[in-house]
Amino acid sequence: MSGQEAAAEPQDPRLTELYKEFDALGLIPLWTEREDLMPLHPKPAAVPHRWRWAELYATAVKAGELVPVGRGGERRAISLSNPGLHGLPHATPTLWAAIQYLGPNEVAPVHRHAQNAFRFVLEGEGVWTIVDGDPVAMRRGDLLLTPGWAWHGHHNTTDQPMAWLDGLDIPLSSALNTEFFEFGPNTLEDRSTPERSKAERIWGHPGLRPLSGLADIPKSPLAAYRWEHTDAALTGQLELEAEGHQGVTAHPGHAAIRFSNPTTGADALPTIRTEMHRLRAGATVPASREVSSSVWQVFEGEGAFVVNGERFDVTHGDLVTVPSWAEVSIEAGAGEQLDLFRFSDAPVMERLHFHTLPASVAERTTH
Amino acid sequence: MSGQEAAAEPQDPRLTELYKEFDALGLIPLWTEREDLMPLHPKPAAVPHRWRWAELYATAVKAGELVPVGRGGERRAISLSNPGLHGLPHATPTLWAAIQYLGPNEVAPVHRHAQNAFRFVLEGEGVWTIVDGDPVAMRRGDLLLTPGWAWHGHHNTTDQPMAWLDGLDIPLSSALNTEFFEFGPNTLEDRSTPERSKAERIWGHPGLRPLSGLADIPKSPLAAYRWEHTDAALTGQLELEAEGHQGVTAHPGHAAIRFSNPTTGADALPTIRTEMHRLRAGATVPASREVSSSVWQVFEGEGAFVVNGERFDVTHGDLVTVPSWAEVSIEAGAGEQLDLFRFSDAPVMERLHFHTLPASVAERTTH
Amino acid sequence: MSGQEAAAEPQDPRLTELYKEFDALGLIPLWTEREDLMPLHPKPAAVPHRWRWAELYATAVKAGELVPVGRGGERRAISLSNPGLHGLPHATPTLWAAIQYLGPNEVAPVHRHAQNAFRFVLEGEGVWTIVDGDPVAMRRGDLLLTPGWAWHGHHNTTDQPMAWLDGLDIPLSSALNTEFFEFGPNTLEDRSTPERSKAERIWGHPGLRPLSGLADIPKSPLAAYRWEHTDAALTGQLELEAEGHQGVTAHPGHAAIRFSNPTTGADALPTIRTEMHRLRAGATVPASREVSSSVWQVFEGEGAFVVNGERFDVTHGDLVTVPSWAEVSIEAGAGEQLDLFRFSDAPVMERLHFHTLPASVAERTTH
Amino acid sequence: MSGQEAAAEPQDPRLTELYKEFDALGLIPLWTEREDLMPLHPKPAAVPHRWRWAELYATAVKAGELVPVGRGGERRAISLSNPGLHGLPHATPTLWAAIQYLGPNEVAPVHRHAQNAFRFVLEGEGVWTIVDGDPVAMRRGDLLLTPGWAWHGHHNTTDQPMAWLDGLDIPLSSALNTEFFEFGPNTLEDRSTPERSKAERIWGHPGLRPLSGLADIPKSPLAAYRWEHTDAALTGQLELEAEGHQGVTAHPGHAAIRFSNPTTGADALPTIRTEMHRLRAGATVPASREVSSSVWQVFEGEGAFVVNGERFDVTHGDLVTVPSWAEVSIEAGAGEQLDLFRFSDAPVMERLHFHTLPASVAERTTH
Repeated sequence: MSGQEAAAEPQDPRLTELYKEFDALGLIPLWTEREDLMPLHPKPAAVPHRWRWAELYATAVKAGELVPVGRGGERRAISLSNPGLHGLPHATPTLWAAIQYLGPNEVAPVHRHAQNAFRFVLEGEGVWTIVDGDPVAMRRGDLLLTPGWAWHGHHNTTDQPMAWLDGLDIPLSSALNTEFFEFGPNTLEDRSTPERSKAERIWGHPGLRPLSGLADIPKSPLAAYRWEHTDAALTGQLELEAEGHQGVTAHPGHAAIRFSNPTTGADALPTIRTEMHRLRAGATVPASREVSSSVWQVFEGEGAFVVNGERFDVTHGDLVTVPSWAEVSIEAGAGEQLDLFRFSDAPVMERLHFHTLPASVAERTTH
Repeated sequence: MSGQEAAAEPQDPRLTELYKEFDALGLIPLWTEREDLMPLHPKPAAVPHRWRWAELYATAVKAGELVPVGRGGERRAISLSNPGLHGLPHATPTLWAAIQYLGPNEVAPVHRHAQNAFRFVLEGEGVWTIVDGDPVAMRRGDLLLTPGWAWHGHHNTTDQPMAWLDGLDIPLSSALNTEFFEFGPNTLEDRSTPERSKAERIWGHPGLRPLSGLADIPKSPLAAYRWEHTDAALTGQLELEAEGHQGVTAHPGHAAIRFSNPTTGADALPTIRTEMHRLRAGATVPASREVSSSVWQVFEGEGAFVVNGERFDVTHGDLVTVPSWAEVSIEAGAGEQLDLFRFSDAPVMERLHFHTLPASVAERTTH
Repeated sequence: MSGQEAAAEPQDPRLTELYKEFDALGLIPLWTEREDLMPLHPKPAAVPHRWRWAELYATAVKAGELVPVGRGGERRAISLSNPGLHGLPHATPTLWAAIQYLGPNEVAPVHRHAQNAFRFVLEGEGVWTIVDGDPVAMRRGDLLLTPGWAWHGHHNTTDQPMAWLDGLDIPLSSALNTEFFEFGPNTLEDRSTPERSKAERIWGHPGLRPLSGLADIPKSPLAAYRWEHTDAALTGQLELEAEGHQGVTAHPGHAAIRFSNPTTGADALPTIRTEMHRLRAGATVPASREVSSSVWQVFEGEGAFVVNGERFDVTHGDLVTVPSWAEVSIEAGAGEQLDLFRFSDAPVMERLHFHTLPASVAERTTH
Repeated sequence: MSGQEAAAEPQDPRLTELYKEFDALGLIPLWTEREDLMPLHPKPAAVPHRWRWAELYATAVKAGELVPVGRGGERRAISLSNPGLHGLPHATPTLWAAIQYLGPNEVAPVHRHAQNAFRFVLEGEGVWTIVDGDPVAMRRGDLLLTPGWAWHGHHNTTDQPMAWLDGLDIPLSSALNTEFFEFGPNTLEDRSTPERSKAERIWGHPGLRPLSGLADIPKSPLAAYRWEHTDAALTGQLELEAEGHQGVTAHPGHAAIRFSNPTTGADALPTIRTEMHRLRAGATVPASREVSSSVWQVFEGEGAFVVNGERFDVTHGDLVTVPSWAEVSIEAGAGEQLDLFRFSDAPVMERLHFHTLPASVAERTTH
């Protein structure tokens, strides 16, 4: 035994004394902690996990009966608590994911915050979210943005409840101590229910920018990405592949799009990547790893995720967390295509240059 | 008289001798040229000018009868020669603009070049341009891109002629000595006539990027910007303005969009800005100047340009050149809205940081 | 009491049942957690704190006698454990700071990792750090970089110990699960002791880039920022101020520089901002807040930090942590100028767009 | 003969008539011009040419006797007129180059303009250029910047004349119609003669940025790049090469640096690249081409340029123009090292994306 390896087993009473001194002075030696602090590869506390939408939804319905929506709690949102994360309401160390449920004619009061948020609509319609005064209809398959500091409140215009997926960077913001929150009015002034938001009317045209909006905006000004367009893009990729065009899909039988900021081409939100994926019936996404944690939700279809060797069968609405550097592969069921929504913290990694590693390290840490 | 002012009137025989010596050595003194070389503000040789589409079209028809399209000349394109530019086929010092005319069932052979190009379709349909192997339908109101180095050829699938506006950065490329040209096949292999190009099927969805195309591309990959979308964007701005929203239009009654590169949010082409403008009937664009030269074409409607005090009435298809730093205002006719296509060299100025000037200078040179 | 305020006190047995169900399913409601998850402003667990260099150094000397440097523990580094951070070896939630101590003729073995690192030398000389094969002398006042993935080992060429400040983004990397580590050789092959590193000979010339290094590099290629230059820059600012030039210093009597990446002008490291500050005797840095956590070290002089109202007198080598959004002001002692080294996570905030907030929120959360 | 090839020889009287009509309407057909407008590769009017410094200097001395410096002519500058450029005072289509000569105690009056300028000092000292109020000493080997819109005037503090190279983007600015000019005071208020400019004291420290100057500036704020640093950088590269380090020099025996903007890492000026090169005695720069035009000046040593097969022997101060896409190689004389200053329009090409071409085209147009 040589070097600092011995240091982990202090027997010398002077060493014991030194460690007490460290403690008294608010100091911690590296040599006893190095392996935990700087492991050979990420060893996330977060674990791969699946939540069943059916179960989530059932609890949300009960919460709808028992818990009012109002000022203070702000939202009837029930968040995924990753089993590895010690009871924290975090899906991964950076991402918060929840089912939000709004009963018939209910209203969620207005607020804003530094954290970035989106909603992805699994099913239903009839709720409008008012983003910086702009009423945005929420409908099946849509991605709706509430970038940091945008005022927002929701109201359900129907006598049916509606539930959807909320995604935020709350854990990241907590880890970085960047949280700010501000209450707005308790009620919504604008109860209009336009088909298209103002943001879409200005920004929702492919490749067209208004002359009144030529400055780059770090967070996408396009408040709604409609299913109609997402579906068309995925359909287009698979059709082109079927017509024999190379390199159009992400993998054979696997179409995918990223939701982007039309003013920069970057991710729609600076801290959260959002994507939609479509696998043909029976297709697979081959195993891979990335320095990034993700949450996936099944939009339509059935299939399975295999994460670090653990298999999770999934169906409509189910959610799966994939920790950083976990190996993940995906299989679509044989019967029909599999549509998947995904969000991740990949933009954080890329902006901080943590996303790439030497080939030799990638190779070694993969096996 | 003091300083170098005197130098412009050499009388001293030694000075005459010196000037001869300069000439022999390939030298030119600054002091006799300074005012021309470095004027107080741009004094473009190019002049404001209007071309009538009806006259352009009539000559194109005659050319269609007399001049075949083929290898060598490459295109039946008739370009605007700015009266100030000494017989050069340049609309402005940086921009080339032409009517291109393709007779029934004619084919324009394949080539590519460093120069960036676009087509804007005033009227008609039935021609497909094949851009890097991708057949792109050309229809009324569409903007079609052929960025530098894209292979391209055209064919008319109908028994009617079709004419459109071609815009290129040929003069800029000539001034900078960046020209390269390569001949492709004389005939087009792919005569298919899809409604939507492959590029549109991949890139033509608002805010959506394919996972197979995440690297930034300096020239827009979206080969076609369809009138349907452009019209909707302009309509949206004017409706929003009518509903009372502030700051949506460029000016009151003046909607405008820029065609952009979805991978960066920048101009669709690195050297050419392309825009579409709509003025309500009777609306005006107030007088302004910019360090940039432009070509405008009337798409629909009637109105007038006032450039440096000279008034040009315009109607369907008419083209107007606006030299750098010229003062331009626009008026829509009283009867109907005025739709205008514009292209300019503004991205060149911005990328080279020539577009801004001190407020005092802007003020002084404007009056 | 209205809305969800009531939800925090469940009495209804159905609600008790529901909360059990949440727990069983790995779910946590937002409404009971919102205030903690999304506070009105950052409420960092990390606290303002001061460590005395004299005490740090004394423990390092003892560790030098008792704990060998070697493979496994890797470094004789003793890190600041913020009293608010539950025994973690983190100075702030994102930053790791330690005194590293290398005895006479000792060698720290070679390794590399994804985490970004720097060393700042309070005093002494005689150690060379070998960064990617390039021997870099460490001397008083120098900032030495070891960007993520650079191989590095150190050796002390003298018979005197040497100690310095190590700064890394270990806590950030842990929070994001981006850690990778690789062992290199146990011994250093190159024991040469050049005055200037290869990196400085290539990159250490103001405004000059080698033609062999024209691509942007996200992490600064300049391995050493020498005190000679830092001192000259600070001296220059204060002299210019004394000569009557406006806007040269950060505040009256307060000169400051940022260490930057010569290929981009950005921070030297993508996740860690590094700065040097100089206050004239008796000068003050007025109170301010930022969305960013910092560690300051006194290089020379005496003075005081006031952080959230708590006063910390500081002298040579003392370290102070400033949590996110804490109010901090600094005073230089009356007798001599105060030189301060600072590092922070500000680039993370800026790259993720968490650094700005609406003026109204900034105002409200400050008082 | 087929297609439009025939079009170039109009015989049909209707065609003759059509061509007259084109002329009357301000139109020019493409098919007769295509080969000139869009050649297979750049065919610059500018030619490779050498100017002898001894001859230039001799004429400047005579001008010094005969032509006063003063308001109107502004500068006693004598510019290179490329023999291919029809008597224009342009060294290349984008670059202006001149010897500027200031007699004992003479003053050049203050002005500013949109055009970017630099001075490179071949020999001598004693002149200060006042750039935006900051007196900047001009000494042998220095590069001094006067970015667009900076006020500037010069004065000679000695009783010896001084001459240097002026470089500007006047031809580019003329081609783009971006010229603006403003007269300042006829005399210089600040006649102080500091060793170092204010700009150097703030910005002239490797990798260090003032906290008072953190915004990106499109034009370098470092007014002077001193020979001391340039020489050290070139020396360092060649020494490192001699020590066996790979990839440090541009080519074997060929060291080179680019002058850059410390706020961005980009070229010091947005339109002009500036570089310094050093070849060991007997070394060569192998033949290459680029889409960019250049002017080279010998700073010290002897050697030869071979441009498009034409050989130009050069010695101290001689200037050589290299048109776009010309093939150029350089040889250092056998006796001593060859130091070369170069400026080019390469940033223009890169910012407009004209600098790259398909490998097949590069190959074809090279032979």
